[in-house]
Amino acid sequence: MITALAGGVGASKLLKGLIEIIKEEDLNIVVNTGDDIEVHGLHISPDLDIVMYTLAGIVDPKKGWGIKEDIFNCLEMLGKYGLQTWFNLGDKDLATHIYRTYLLKNGYTLSEITKKICKSLGVKVNILPMSDDKVQTIIFTEKGNMHFEEYLIKRQSQDKVLDVKFEGIEKSRPAKGVIHSILKSHTVILCPSNPIVSINPILSVPGIRKALKATKAKVIGVTPIVGGTTIKGPADKLMRGLGFEVSPYGVALLYRDFLDNFIIDNIDEKKKNQIENLGIKVKSTNTIMKNITDKVRLAREILNTTK
Amino acid sequence: MITALAGGVGASKLLKGLIEIIKEEDLNIVVNTGDDIEVHGLHISPDLDIVMYTLAGIVDPKKGWGIKEDIFNCLEMLGKYGLQTWFNLGDKDLATHIYRTYLLKNGYTLSEITKKICKSLGVKVNILPMSDDKVQTIIFTEKGNMHFEEYLIKRQSQDKVLDVKFEGIEKSRPAKGVIHSILKSHTVILCPSNPIVSINPILSVPGIRKALKATKAKVIGVTPIVGGTTIKGPADKLMRGLGFEVSPYGVALLYRDFLDNFIIDNIDEKKKNQIENLGIKVKSTNTIMKNITDKVRLAREILNTTK
Repeated sequence: MITALAGGVGASKLLKGLIEIIKEEDLNIVVNTGDDIEVHGLHISPDLDIVMYTLAGIVDPKKGWGIKEDIFNCLEMLGKYGLQTWFNLGDKDLATHIYRTYLLKNGYTLSEITKKICKSLGVKVNILPMSDDKVQTIIFTEKGNMHFEEYLIKRQSQDKVLDVKFEGIEKSRPAKGVIHSILKSHTVILCPSNPIVSINPILSVPGIRKALKATKAKVIGVTPIVGGTTIKGPADKLMRGLGFEVSPYGVALLYRDFLDNFIIDNIDEKKKNQIENLGIKVKSTNTIMKNITDKVRLAREILNTTK
Repeated sequence: MITALAGGVGASKLLKGLIEIIKEEDLNIVVNTGDDIEVHGLHISPDLDIVMYTLAGIVDPKKGWGIKEDIFNCLEMLGKYGLQTWFNLGDKDLATHIYRTYLLKNGYTLSEITKKICKSLGVKVNILPMSDDKVQTIIFTEKGNMHFEEYLIKRQSQDKVLDVKFEGIEKSRPAKGVIHSILKSHTVILCPSNPIVSINPILSVPGIRKALKATKAKVIGVTPIVGGTTIKGPADKLMRGLGFEVSPYGVALLYRDFLDNFIIDNIDEKKKNQIENLGIKVKSTNTIMKNITDKVRLAREILNTTK
């Protein structure tokens, strides 16, 4: 059994490669839900959706989120009603949010709903939200505090970041199966996701970090920072804002208490010794995933690391 | 000021003609909300939507409901999630339901929401739900009891009707402005809507029938039954099931306690005396509205009746 901790787009690329070489049923993915947001009364789980759509093969391949060939007729009409339209809601994508909101209203947990959606989409991987409890990633900026999605999409990550808080995290509990999965896997992969707002919320759910320290699994991270920047998303801006070095070393520092291995990009080879001094084994390779071959190759290198 | 009591498609045709000859601002429309239904957690007001879309000029002209050129991508996806898809939800149309549900959740009344939607759609007519309270039209059939929309759409009105009940009607109150509008108008029009499930719910909201009896307005009905059948919808089946004569006379009997004038179709000329014996003045004309000219002509004939 393998467990992956995942955010959205970066993680999904790697996971898409991973399920080419292992059985879907052998993979558990613990997904960040700190980005979850209510838009016009609908409960949206951006990272869960990206992971599910990607593994189902229906994700929009250009954007990395949403459903391919989806259009935005409903959103356009919502705009006519004066509602904010910065959160992109495709017409097919909306079905997921309507369904999830409907089931939540009827007492289902986010975990149960995720299972139902996966089943409908033909995804056999065991996808787990980090928690069934409400956690909200709030970005403190010079322009005020805002939900992460607002910072990311509406404000286009332009505001200087002062702090990040996960509202509700103290009272949150890991979703059923999360701790068990981490403890019982032979490998735990920290996907190349934003360390501040994708992986850190997962690590901050009480009990999860402790399980990562306790597990006998080999815990392997993949850097989301390559050559001092990110492939996608605002990880670099967030790290810089919070005073972290924007490098694989900066990321490794965040995971040093439980990480066994760290995969960095060849371009950051020079950081290898610095990271190994933290007691983490480092392997450098090409971490850029442009196509399925790249994804499979990187996944294979990760699995080989465990040997 | 003119007040119209309205259901969906039949009413909307006439109202579309009416606003060609009177100022939109002079018209109040009291709309049936007994058909309101929650579908997948969304609050849908079928008759309000038909009236608003029609007066806004965005209704699907062939179907008489929904938004023109709307497509059904979201509904198709909801179907993949295993949800029932018999209730037609176009992608643009969905925006109305999402918006309404969102505002209801935030404490707005259906009346307030209807005003907001009308404003966004550029409709200046004062459209009032019959009540802000929940009323549900339940059809008792040989195949069991069901919501009217289920009887109409899912079951295609095929089940023998035994009874009709408006759940919640006893405790419902007329929406703000409804009674005032009926009492202060010079003309009240009962649109050619289903007498059993469109007009009767309105009449059954405590206080409305009394206001119709008390008003000094000329109260004019337009028959929805022409030549023993209906133009659209199951009015004939419902009337037959409940033991009413399927004719303008059968309809007039339902309104006899407050109706001053009744417009019937030329084809039913033979019923004129029978209806006039109820103390109702009858005018026969061509009541079939195939195009805007028909709609305007019929609206004009109704208004001329008051003179």
